Amino acid sequence: MSVEEPGIEAAMRLAIEHSRQVKGSTYPNPPVGAVILDRDGQVVGAGGTAPAGGDHAEVLALRRAGRLAAGGVAVVTLEPCNHHGKTPPCVDALLEAGVATVVYAVSDPNKIAAGGADRLSEAGVQVRSGVLRDEVVAGPLREWLHKQRTGRPHVTWKYASSVDGRSAAADGSSQWISSEASRLDLHRRRAVSDAIIVGTGTVLADDPALTARLPDGSLADKQPLRIVVGKREIHSEAKVLNDDSRTMVIRTHDPAEVLQALADRTDVLLEGGPTLAGAFLRAGLIDRILVYVAPILLGGPITAVDDVGVPTIAKALRWQFDGTDRIGPDLLLSLVPNSG
Amino acid sequence: MSVEEPGIEAAMRLAIEHSRQVKGSTYPNPPVGAVILDRDGQVVGAGGTAPAGGDHAEVLALRRAGRLAAGGVAVVTLEPCNHHGKTPPCVDALLEAGVATVVYAVSDPNKIAAGGADRLSEAGVQVRSGVLRDEVVAGPLREWLHKQRTGRPHVTWKYASSVDGRSAAADGSSQWISSEASRLDLHRRRAVSDAIIVGTGTVLADDPALTARLPDGSLADKQPLRIVVGKREIHSEAKVLNDDSRTMVIRTHDPAEVLQALADRTDVLLEGGPTLAGAFLRAGLIDRILVYVAPILLGGPITAVDDVGVPTIAKALRWQFDGTDRIGPDLLLSLVPNSG
Ligand SMILES: NC(=O)c1ccc[n+]([C@@H]2O[C@H](COP(=O)([O-])OP(=O)(O)OC[C@H]3O[C@@H](n4cnc5c(N)ncnc54)[C@H](OP(=O)(O)O)[C@@H]3O)[C@@H](O)[C@H]2O)c1
Ligand SMILES: NC(=O)c1ccc[n+]([C@@H]2O[C@H](COP(=O)([O-])OP(=O)(O)OC[C@H]3O[C@@H](n4cnc5c(N)ncnc54)[C@H](OP(=O)(O)O)[C@@H]3O)[C@@H](O)[C@H]2O)c1
Repeated sequence: MSVEEPGIEAAMRLAIEHSRQVKGSTYPNPPVGAVILDRDGQVVGAGGTAPAGGDHAEVLALRRAGRLAAGGVAVVTLEPCNHHGKTPPCVDALLEAGVATVVYAVSDPNKIAAGGADRLSEAGVQVRSGVLRDEVVAGPLREWLHKQRTGRPHVTWKYASSVDGRSAAADGSSQWISSEASRLDLHRRRAVSDAIIVGTGTVLADDPALTARLPDGSLADKQPLRIVVGKREIHSEAKVLNDDSRTMVIRTHDPAEVLQALADRTDVLLEGGPTLAGAFLRAGLIDRILVYVAPILLGGPITAVDDVGVPTIAKALRWQFDGTDRIGPDLLLSLVPNSG
Repeated sequence: MSVEEPGIEAAMRLAIEHSRQVKGSTYPNPPVGAVILDRDGQVVGAGGTAPAGGDHAEVLALRRAGRLAAGGVAVVTLEPCNHHGKTPPCVDALLEAGVATVVYAVSDPNKIAAGGADRLSEAGVQVRSGVLRDEVVAGPLREWLHKQRTGRPHVTWKYASSVDGRSAAADGSSQWISSEASRLDLHRRRAVSDAIIVGTGTVLADDPALTARLPDGSLADKQPLRIVVGKREIHSEAKVLNDDSRTMVIRTHDPAEVLQALADRTDVLLEGGPTLAGAFLRAGLIDRILVYVAPILLGGPITAVDDVGVPTIAKALRWQFDGTDRIGPDLLLSLVPNSG
């Protein structure tokens, strides 16, 4: 390979950036990023997966590179597909463009689409895998890989709490615990999620719209499907039933049944409340926890979650921090299941 | 001044480092750091306040610099004192050494010791104040300045909790919520505190020794005074009454009375439990909160603090994050009262 190691890593970082930018808009395809380097290692094309039915990342990046791709390197976050879906296989496009080398981060676990690396090798292209693999696995492809592995959508449980773990003051008032900056951050996350889940308790108590809004208050282009879980009737005037997005009411108490109903989704956001979140935790069906922690103390009886099925300390649910960010005055803690 | 700006800031950072190193060992003197630069801006001496009765930082740093101090710069975290205490005024030592310039971070609020800057100016020394002031005020001198301002010791409330704000599992088991790394960190903090406060409830439930221990389990050189607050009798076999340090039992429920009894101390650590911490919070007598957050979920009824006197969200106790650190698998959150 004529391109130096640092150049390849830098190109993969750029590819990761492109994949992040399209995350949430590529369903049912994975959010992939691709970068094309010419023979001299210069970036001559880049792209991220287009919305479903549109081009894959490699094809976009190759189109931008044009003839400069010949003899160059394609750097992709996921193994190029070898499968005729709505679009022809990316492997065909790479061979046609005449790239000399293909570097990718993660192998495709999807049996139908996989085999791309083998076909490239057989055609005489140098293939290398595993570059920045961990970053891609924990980052932009996390939800999609989870879905491939388990058949279930990836569930992120989001909640807001005071430093002392409360989700409301003693009289039930809770607007607002977290700052405007945190609420904007949440709306950005809603816009890239495939669905938002809440229990009937939250709908009856707070009447939330569960839409993704822009900073000016208008609706984001893409709205997640809204899911209400529980057996009680929801008033037809409830905001969650308005026309801003679609809504599905699932009359069950079984988290597994909820996820079955969402089997065609990849990235869902569980927004509580405590009863429903506890049920998901006890069922082991939460894959990430995001906590917006406000720098306040509330005390009192209303905690962000109640029964998580832990009788004694030895049975604590063990997670690990995988990130902490300041968002305005708040802290955003991110946790994933403890792998250790 | 012949020394460049970046050199002065770097010297102040070194002085801050020296003050941090002596923090907790200088009582009743403030933990000050001093650095001497020669005419060319080279560091030729540095030091931090020696234990009470010993030398002040400036004197130690000047001694190390010897004759190289003449015509140089003294960089000190606190305005040099102009007061005959157990030792002669630092101003005398600085004049005798012939430094041309004195730079300090914070003015001395202590009426008896202050006046140092004026006397130096009158003697023809260039004086400059305010360099890295905010860092010193929020850092090594925080507790001492608080004591000068309020007449009360600075109270740090420390607790350990799960991400969901619990201090024990439903059955009361709590050993251990936080990791060994966090417990070592706590023992380091105990060793530099002047006193540790707990309620009788914690003593009766956990029988803690409340000593500062080194990683090998042996006692640290310096042990904080142990304070037990409450009216119930403590069993004479309780570990908190052993010979490893001194102990004071204060038979009151009034936090202000506790702090009066500690009026000669500067830096105290409140280690709970929830009842006593709630009383201090309601009285507005907590100056810093340190939370060791373990990446676990516990649920259930046992929260790290119960009644903080907040009936409704508008009356939330408002703080601000002033630091977050990873300690092993845990997070250490530090909060100070909201100044905004
Ligand atoms: N801090 C935060 O981030 C946050 C987020 C959301 C909500 N909240 C607060 O949470 C409060 C509402 O609490 P909540 O616990 O009632 O809300 P919830 O969890 O949204 O709803 C509870 C309801 O969900 C249904 N449900 C679904 N699965 C269940 C199961 N396995 N077991 C039992 N019930 C199940 C039941 O409805 P049916 O009885 O209809 O069957 C139950 O009454 C509100 O005050 C809201 O403000 C806070
Ligand atoms: N997670 C943590 O970091 C942490 C830290 C410490 C303790 N804990 C846990 O906390 C539990 C003990 O809880 P606790 O609340 O009983 O402990 P506590 O706060 O240490 O002690 C409570 C006692 O303090 C006395 N007291 C002092 N001022 C008071 C006031 N203003 N109002 C009422 N009482 C006052 C009372 O004693 P009298 O009745 O004798 O007058 C009261 O019973 C233990 O299980 C322990 O493990 C957890």
